Amino acid sequence: MRDIQNDHDDRQIPIRQAGIKNLRYPIAVLDRENKLQHTVGTIGMSVDLPHNYKGTHMSRFVEILVELEGRISPRHLGSVLKTISKRFDSTTAHLELRFPYFIEKQAPVSMARSYMDYQCAFLAAYDRRRRPTLDLVLEVAVPVSTLCPCSKAISSHGAHNQRSTVTMRTRSRSLVWIEELVEIAEAEASSPLFALLKRADEKHVTESAYSRPRFAEDVARAVALRLKADRRITWFQVESENMESIHNHNAYATVIGGAART
Amino acid sequence: MRDIQNDHDDRQIPIRQAGIKNLRYPIAVLDRENKLQHTVGTIGMSVDLPHNYKGTHMSRFVEILVELEGRISPRHLGSVLKTISKRFDSTTAHLELRFPYFIEKQAPVSMARSYMDYQCAFLAAYDRRRRPTLDLVLEVAVPVSTLCPCSKAISSHGAHNQRSTVTMRTRSRSLVWIEELVEIAEAEASSPLFALLKRADEKHVTESAYSRPRFAEDVARAVALRLKADRRITWFQVESENMESIHNHNAYATVIGGAART
Amino acid sequence: MRDIQNDHDDRQIPIRQAGIKNLRYPIAVLDRENKLQHTVGTIGMSVDLPHNYKGTHMSRFVEILVELEGRISPRHLGSVLKTISKRFDSTTAHLELRFPYFIEKQAPVSMARSYMDYQCAFLAAYDRRRRPTLDLVLEVAVPVSTLCPCSKAISSHGAHNQRSTVTMRTRSRSLVWIEELVEIAEAEASSPLFALLKRADEKHVTESAYSRPRFAEDVARAVALRLKADRRITWFQVESENMESIHNHNAYATVIGGAART
Amino acid sequence: MRDIQNDHDDRQIPIRQAGIKNLRYPIAVLDRENKLQHTVGTIGMSVDLPHNYKGTHMSRFVEILVELEGRISPRHLGSVLKTISKRFDSTTAHLELRFPYFIEKQAPVSMARSYMDYQCAFLAAYDRRRRPTLDLVLEVAVPVSTLCPCSKAISSHGAHNQRSTVTMRTRSRSLVWIEELVEIAEAEASSPLFALLKRADEKHVTESAYSRPRFAEDVARAVALRLKADRRITWFQVESENMESIHNHNAYATVIGGAART
Repeated sequence: MRDIQNDHDDRQIPIRQAGIKNLRYPIAVLDRENKLQHTVGTIGMSVDLPHNYKGTHMSRFVEILVELEGRISPRHLGSVLKTISKRFDSTTAHLELRFPYFIEKQAPVSMARSYMDYQCAFLAAYDRRRRPTLDLVLEVAVPVSTLCPCSKAISSHGAHNQRSTVTMRTRSRSLVWIEELVEIAEAEASSPLFALLKRADEKHVTESAYSRPRFAEDVARAVALRLKADRRITWFQVESENMESIHNHNAYATVIGGAART
Repeated sequence: MRDIQNDHDDRQIPIRQAGIKNLRYPIAVLDRENKLQHTVGTIGMSVDLPHNYKGTHMSRFVEILVELEGRISPRHLGSVLKTISKRFDSTTAHLELRFPYFIEKQAPVSMARSYMDYQCAFLAAYDRRRRPTLDLVLEVAVPVSTLCPCSKAISSHGAHNQRSTVTMRTRSRSLVWIEELVEIAEAEASSPLFALLKRADEKHVTESAYSRPRFAEDVARAVALRLKADRRITWFQVESENMESIHNHNAYATVIGGAART
Repeated sequence: MRDIQNDHDDRQIPIRQAGIKNLRYPIAVLDRENKLQHTVGTIGMSVDLPHNYKGTHMSRFVEILVELEGRISPRHLGSVLKTISKRFDSTTAHLELRFPYFIEKQAPVSMARSYMDYQCAFLAAYDRRRRPTLDLVLEVAVPVSTLCPCSKAISSHGAHNQRSTVTMRTRSRSLVWIEELVEIAEAEASSPLFALLKRADEKHVTESAYSRPRFAEDVARAVALRLKADRRITWFQVESENMESIHNHNAYATVIGGAART
Repeated sequence: MRDIQNDHDDRQIPIRQAGIKNLRYPIAVLDRENKLQHTVGTIGMSVDLPHNYKGTHMSRFVEILVELEGRISPRHLGSVLKTISKRFDSTTAHLELRFPYFIEKQAPVSMARSYMDYQCAFLAAYDRRRRPTLDLVLEVAVPVSTLCPCSKAISSHGAHNQRSTVTMRTRSRSLVWIEELVEIAEAEASSPLFALLKRADEKHVTESAYSRPRFAEDVARAVALRLKADRRITWFQVESENMESIHNHNAYATVIGGAART
């Protein structure tokens, strides 16, 4: 059967990335307590394609994924990407894995337990011409509550507050756990969120948020300070975005720190 | 050229609805000030198909839409649906038109003007066997702010609040303006939202919301009372949904009133 | 601490549904091979609220969910809903659980194995005044391929085809497996989809789809015939929707059969 | 009233971008035929914030937008961004404007007219320390049809095809019209899409696509060649993404050309 992807292409245009996107697959991620967490990944995989080849054998991406049997941890991403690069005979390879991740939390007063969901991603790039060959970014999005300092300062009672999302992206020398980034964002917002809060917890969360007003700018800066102080982290980006409760649009602030891979 | 849609089908299965969905088209909607508002519609159109026909001539839906030149008002929907039904020789016809609608608002203290966006829909069904032949539902979704009565009552300071959406669907004897439904929802929430608020407005909105705590249940009931009292309205559904600022999930309440078309 | 939800409400407006929406939670679903499949649920839960109560104790929904420890199967939904109704002292209760579900499939020629994802839902309603008290709808959405019969009939070569979704909702006397509905939809489309196809498989899938042209109407009817013939199934709705490869809008057809719960 | 945003911040962390996101506003865009096209914008605006200021006065973004009265064209973006930078006394300013844009097209045989929708964006960045101070990227996403060359080559009949999206981003010395980029993408795919096609058109489109098989890689390269040959264009990125009709995931290819702004 003809292998048309292997045909010669004479347009002299190299392809930066050719691959697949938006593939859902069952995966298992190792959590800090050393247990496998079963979740659902949304996956992108790609390679570069030299100018003289017509097409990419897209099915090979899925074959590699099937071989992994769903076990994907940051520790193995280097070898996964090397495998991709070898199978495709490519110079570069990319893997993007997005997944909801659950952490069991306790309500602040009743100590009632429930799971909270966090959207996470491993963004991995391999380039066989570089040292190190692997560039890995961890992304964690943490839903929190923020209470507006301006609204509190100028109002005789109350202050507008809202659900916000703190999205952190980090590059690091050694492993940073998802749980660690979640703790940082939740500590620096006006309040963390919980799936389950009893009345005594609701009182605690309301009063605690009122005593900790934070602009989007404040949250971004405070998280940035914490990431900057972590010797493992070599680069980070923090974005804090508020679903404003007085507007139908969002407010946000972004801080970038450290040296991006050049 | 063969017209395969006209082929005979002998499976004895009538099609309840066959049509098109998710077509974006430029439209103009008449607003209360009698001006045409240009916006972008997302459109669905369908008809029933008797058991003995194989297929529907889907292009006819778009032809009818093109003939309308984008002018779609509730007043004309009856004749539009009659046209659809005639062209397809169908017993029933449906048209669903969703669009963002803008209303100019003034901030409460500074009186600064800006536009707020509201997601609206006309949901129209025609059945030539019924009297009246047209069934028309108007849907308007109004983003508002709600402040939690429980959180206020139990906390020594502050109260959690959040962006919420009040979605109203109404059937009526005579025309109800989108602007009227927006005013009702905004009046019955803890506070309306605005695109533009200066500092004096933010103080006003914060204090006003703190003085008007509302559960999702309260907003749904208060809006329902207003719709019930309107002699034009024969049926309604109200849903109030809060993007809780202390949870990563939403709370909601639904009230239904009047006699649905039977 | 004051329990403001228990306050008396004198507006004489009963709440049809009050509850939570869009809660993500780790769940385990029993599959046909009798193994637990770990996946991620998006959950809604609600109850009715009599006219004389002000509010609902929303945290109780999450407490019940936590007690289930993520094990949710159609067999247990009756007792789950009864529990909800008792805890809230409500007349009715609803639970809506949406989740991606994975089935291992084999490519038609190479027999290569991979997982395909299907969006599923359990839509359960309880009413203590009815017999039986539980109304359960299973929803399964199956992505397939459809090839246009008209395009094939009138063109000298080729035929436009596209990714489509067949969404089935069923009520049944006894358990219908997700796997059974998936098999029906895949058998009646122009072709099933696969995550992994080698070149020999791609040839097979292309030729097989070309030999089985199907309108959206055809797929909806053929699936309806199969569901109608199943003695367990008492009601169904089938919708087949094509992401047309010649348009930027979708075409669809819906068939409803059996007696809906009245 | 206290202006808490003006408070001093001593954390030594500058904010890269602080602003608003996801604001919907009615806008009018100039089209190639020199007419104003009314559409709906989704808008983001931001500035940098020096390390010693606590917060940004977010309402000023909306004030500037209101002053524009919805008239936003690439020609004016330089002065709009300069205004933002002056009002905020910032070094940099960003404006991101996304909108659906409609072009009237004629079916290839019947010449029937209808509008097609294209998602477009102006991505504008201002930096007062640079020359030129304005960096403007135009983004246009064009839905097209692609037919798989491999599937055609190996199959005895037919070939799988699907709806695809070609997304182009360009920087240019002088104005490039949205209409020009749309024409390039539609010319280099297997076929353009249309809202309205009669049977003779459907035959034409089917046969024409069958005679022009294109991988995602082919489309990306062919569009890249056209953009490279345009003397006005100094940088571009092309991404072609197929909603594969044989998979439930997408295939894509990206080409980047020219010198990015450094």
